[in-house]
Amino acid sequence: MSLVNLSKQVALGIDIGGTNTKFGLVNHRGEILERGHLKTEQYEKVEDFIDELYNEIKPLLDKCCKDREFEGIGVGAPNANYYKGTIEDAPNLRWKGIIPFADMMSKKFGTNCKITNDANAAALGEMLYGAARGMKDFIMMTLGTGVGSGIVCGGNLIYGHDGFAGELGHTIVKPGGRKHWSTGSEGSLEAYASATGIAITAKKMRVEFPNSMLNNFPEEEINSRVVYECAAKGDATSIEVFRYTGQKLGEALANFVMFSSPEAILLFGGVIKAGDFILKPTKLHMERNLLPIFRNKVKLVFSELDEADAAILGASALVWENNYSQPPQINS
Amino acid sequence: MSLVNLSKQVALGIDIGGTNTKFGLVNHRGEILERGHLKTEQYEKVEDFIDELYNEIKPLLDKCCKDREFEGIGVGAPNANYYKGTIEDAPNLRWKGIIPFADMMSKKFGTNCKITNDANAAALGEMLYGAARGMKDFIMMTLGTGVGSGIVCGGNLIYGHDGFAGELGHTIVKPGGRKHWSTGSEGSLEAYASATGIAITAKKMRVEFPNSMLNNFPEEEINSRVVYECAAKGDATSIEVFRYTGQKLGEALANFVMFSSPEAILLFGGVIKAGDFILKPTKLHMERNLLPIFRNKVKLVFSELDEADAAILGASALVWENNYSQPPQINS
Repeated sequence: MSLVNLSKQVALGIDIGGTNTKFGLVNHRGEILERGHLKTEQYEKVEDFIDELYNEIKPLLDKCCKDREFEGIGVGAPNANYYKGTIEDAPNLRWKGIIPFADMMSKKFGTNCKITNDANAAALGEMLYGAARGMKDFIMMTLGTGVGSGIVCGGNLIYGHDGFAGELGHTIVKPGGRKHWSTGSEGSLEAYASATGIAITAKKMRVEFPNSMLNNFPEEEINSRVVYECAAKGDATSIEVFRYTGQKLGEALANFVMFSSPEAILLFGGVIKAGDFILKPTKLHMERNLLPIFRNKVKLVFSELDEADAAILGASALVWENNYSQPPQINS
Repeated sequence: MSLVNLSKQVALGIDIGGTNTKFGLVNHRGEILERGHLKTEQYEKVEDFIDELYNEIKPLLDKCCKDREFEGIGVGAPNANYYKGTIEDAPNLRWKGIIPFADMMSKKFGTNCKITNDANAAALGEMLYGAARGMKDFIMMTLGTGVGSGIVCGGNLIYGHDGFAGELGHTIVKPGGRKHWSTGSEGSLEAYASATGIAITAKKMRVEFPNSMLNNFPEEEINSRVVYECAAKGDATSIEVFRYTGQKLGEALANFVMFSSPEAILLFGGVIKAGDFILKPTKLHMERNLLPIFRNKVKLVFSELDEADAAILGASALVWENNYSQPPQINS
């Protein structure tokens, strides 16, 4: 392989969410040189969405690539299939069916395009730019409105035979437990450990404890942020909400550790703002459910990436993963 | 890489169990050319065990390698660490502490030696010689006295950061459930889906159903084989024992599928002799707990390897894995 001047390369990272799409031009150090955003939900047709993306990004590319080489596009999107380059029946997007998104982007932009789900992208981002630098075995858990995950084993993202591996938010932590609002499954991790799940737990628990501060809020205002604020003020019920959530999360993490024996589990997303209220019970119940050979080995780490940028960085990391069998040297 | 004559190569596969050790000289077609066994438990010192292994195997090697090349040694053993080449505090072996088994074997035999746990070895054996030929993503479950597992993702065995990945028998399927007789954990898969677990379930259920055939046997004779025989005769309680076992197994498998999205799950070991009594409920509850994108995709397959030979073949497969990035062509 001939030597390349990494500092002269730039990748386009795009994070597609149900409401917003964010994009950025990223160098190999993980610096976002140019950035922008789009309202995903405004575009009924994916073709129009891609046209508008191109119109927004082309001027930035022209500006940025005067003295740099454009290496390719990485996309993080819900229900994305890495192998096929498709977005398949994503419940939160208006574009139904199986969309050959990577191909469409490739044609429009005239360069290669890789696509994966947002949590996988976030894991790549952590491996290249964040808390997982130098790690070959780790699991990334994104704890937001939902619970996503990206699994890295031996330095490689786990995609599975069909490209859909790593749906740890949908693993069952309590058989016959809480029914999931969207999938209908009973007792999944997401039903408890997402922000949505925490709000449900809080609404149930405050009924049992009439003295809880949580009862000062109308039903529709109860969310994980409010529960955190009450916990921080010493509200025992709110603290118990996070303890219960941490227990469910810790039990799930123990199972994940016994699957792939990672060096660390990275936690990312709005839910971790609760800090020790959730981290301590999570760690306790993870350790308690591990076989002795796994105990006190696995680091529980908060993400180092800025939440606003992580999705863009992670998506751009797909480009480097595509071009190098190992991440490029950050300090070269 | 220069061309090698695969048909002239031979690997030594050794399967170390708590009671017996079996070994065989295996060619690249998975044929066992020479074989033998030893009583593991007779040897208080691991040095004496290795000396005796050498004394038994050397004449076979001399005979077999007149016109063949000896490629190396693969060992399947409990609590084996692939990276370090050690056996670490195996509860079922008399040799305590951390034993540098691969190094000791290498020195004694004058060739390379790789070691991994028995379920990982079995997974390699299936990939090279058995039902997983051509698969890059599958999970091997060994359902015997205990429950072991070997996980292959993207064509590679998953070892984890410390070499201990793939302890799926110890994942928790029912939080706060049945206490494990050895680890003390509550509600692990092994506590339900092993032969030992099935016997426990049967002993509990027959108390509830006085008319069950299971009550014709004294307590100490109740084992998974007896339960199967009663089920085959139509005993409803015995059928229910397997249904319950299959439910627990199926729920666990669903979680594993959502982790690594394998093409197939291979089932191996004494428990699967119960056939459809266990397979049908397993499949039902696996599918029921999967996200729609995973449903009706994952094959549940019985192992194709002869049970008596599988452990030797699997161990020998470590040698080929060591020498080739891909399994050698079986038909060359």
